[in-house]
Amino acid sequence: MNFYPGPGALPLPVLKRIHTELFNFDGTGMSVMEISHRNPKIQFIIDDSVERIKRLMTLNDEFDVIFLQGGGSLQFLMVPMNFSEDGDYIDYIDTGYWAEKAIRAAKGLDRDLEIIASSADSYHTKVPNLAKVQLREKTRYLHLCSNNTVVGTQFHDFPKFSVPVVVDMSSDFMSKSMDTTNLSCIYAHAQKNIGLSGVTVVLIRKEMLTQVSENLPEFLDYRTHIARRSNYHTPPCFSIYVMWHILRWIEEDMGGLNQLGEINQKKADLLYNFIDSCALFDCPVEKQSRSQMNVVFTLPSKDLEQQFIQAAAESGIVGVAGHRTKGGCRVSLYNGVTIEAVSSLTMFMEDFAQNN
Amino acid sequence: MNFYPGPGALPLPVLKRIHTELFNFDGTGMSVMEISHRNPKIQFIIDDSVERIKRLMTLNDEFDVIFLQGGGSLQFLMVPMNFSEDGDYIDYIDTGYWAEKAIRAAKGLDRDLEIIASSADSYHTKVPNLAKVQLREKTRYLHLCSNNTVVGTQFHDFPKFSVPVVVDMSSDFMSKSMDTTNLSCIYAHAQKNIGLSGVTVVLIRKEMLTQVSENLPEFLDYRTHIARRSNYHTPPCFSIYVMWHILRWIEEDMGGLNQLGEINQKKADLLYNFIDSCALFDCPVEKQSRSQMNVVFTLPSKDLEQQFIQAAAESGIVGVAGHRTKGGCRVSLYNGVTIEAVSSLTMFMEDFAQNN
Repeated sequence: MNFYPGPGALPLPVLKRIHTELFNFDGTGMSVMEISHRNPKIQFIIDDSVERIKRLMTLNDEFDVIFLQGGGSLQFLMVPMNFSEDGDYIDYIDTGYWAEKAIRAAKGLDRDLEIIASSADSYHTKVPNLAKVQLREKTRYLHLCSNNTVVGTQFHDFPKFSVPVVVDMSSDFMSKSMDTTNLSCIYAHAQKNIGLSGVTVVLIRKEMLTQVSENLPEFLDYRTHIARRSNYHTPPCFSIYVMWHILRWIEEDMGGLNQLGEINQKKADLLYNFIDSCALFDCPVEKQSRSQMNVVFTLPSKDLEQQFIQAAAESGIVGVAGHRTKGGCRVSLYNGVTIEAVSSLTMFMEDFAQNN
Repeated sequence: MNFYPGPGALPLPVLKRIHTELFNFDGTGMSVMEISHRNPKIQFIIDDSVERIKRLMTLNDEFDVIFLQGGGSLQFLMVPMNFSEDGDYIDYIDTGYWAEKAIRAAKGLDRDLEIIASSADSYHTKVPNLAKVQLREKTRYLHLCSNNTVVGTQFHDFPKFSVPVVVDMSSDFMSKSMDTTNLSCIYAHAQKNIGLSGVTVVLIRKEMLTQVSENLPEFLDYRTHIARRSNYHTPPCFSIYVMWHILRWIEEDMGGLNQLGEINQKKADLLYNFIDSCALFDCPVEKQSRSQMNVVFTLPSKDLEQQFIQAAAESGIVGVAGHRTKGGCRVSLYNGVTIEAVSSLTMFMEDFAQNN
């Protein structure tokens, strides 16, 4: 049972399909790994993935969808590079580790960055109330991280702001249906909920592209990749191919994001309810801010936490250690994790609690 | 038979190994796709790949080896960003399509770039004589592209220059043993000779790193990735894993780069000798500049070229069309292409010549 924080568990039916067609993709007699990125079959995988994302998220044609390399880390630079100029105001919300990484990267550019809300005061155990966030008047955009994998918090709704809202959705993208009306740009690497590392999905409202700086290197300009349908240079074809299979699984096997979101909610409820009912485990995160994806908890001592992680490994349960910068425990419940796996985990935790 | 210019054919034993262990990597009970990038098994794949590259290329510890995302295209920016400052002289050699892309990207930065040698006069049918290249006195580095996939030329030796030499080796990296004494930085994406798109190998002489600008974004600074052993952010694990298998295949199955280079030479000789002996096909590239990797040739008319490409496809031979910007025909002979495949191709070409 795999509860890694990503890369992590993939849906078994997807793995089986990849395995079955590994030597012969779609009647070509070749592995999908061996097909040129200029072959129409690869462009079809790219285009069909775009269409599936739009359909699953009920996006209208106001959004462009592209697939890039470089993970969230490159987006930490591309977002300010594309959506602001030297000296511009840009507002960020600090909700811990990854939000801070985005802030540090953008601060390295010549922008006037301000952290206009932060959960640091509460040790990041709850997300700021977006309804109370005050933006600076001339700010070009607001940036936030929707799900905070290290601290186990999540924004569940996005109100309307007077400026474009850019969301790092790396760890909850495609985990549930989501209202994108008030969002202007969403980016997410694939290795949490939709596949392998190596590909990053970026959704951009077309109106954002009218003000991109003309001096941006072509490679770092979103418009380059939009114009070339994510095939400006050789795309990470295999990672896109695995994502495509997962998108098909979400749409055809699971029935869409509503159904998938319900399952993910059940998984999270099962684990949080057990933790809240058991004296040995403590989840420090405020209930309204709890992440559906990453459940962080502690035990009464570091020793006991180490024993727990060790005993879990011996029972075939991997990936329950907290982030290396934070300690404690963390269980990740991405799309590839089954409700049966969560159920087995709670039983294991119950046994452990009785014996300790 | 797959002669794609990359992504292209993979060695069959490698595909078989990937297929065999797809559900259970190294006794973990998990697919390699599902393992966290912080797991020691993934770091082992990264570190062992570094060691194998160093051993195969007989590099000493003067080189650092890292694995990045973004392909050659991102290196077109990272090279000038890391190895020069605003206003610095940087010298480039123009040998066609990809060299020009590197030049265009670097020109977008505030450097003083000069094309100090070019093969444009000969329509890129031969590479400039490096022994005659005159660098500008204060130039920070010389950049060149060792193998030119679109025009089918290749530099076969690298003399010593008074400044560091940076080589885009994307399409002949790991195809033969090579003297790196006179080179300071080598970069190559993997999808030609060592695997899948999505990962780019960069070799950097340590002395190059002492002068990197302090104002570079962390993500774009080579030192970031060196310090974190290519695990600064989530690496493209699966692409690295496939590369690792190909490196093992080169070392353990093929016996190293000398042996592999001999086979690649035989493949190229077979095809060039046939083309030179057959009146229907013409290779426009000067003999000393011919690429061992990409064999370009023409037929007497565009119509006949189309017929040839079509007939090849009907015989199960794919990837023989020339680059979309250039036309004609092109056959790529990367590591994954067997000598048997080349032999079958020349037989097909001979038949085609007899019937046309």
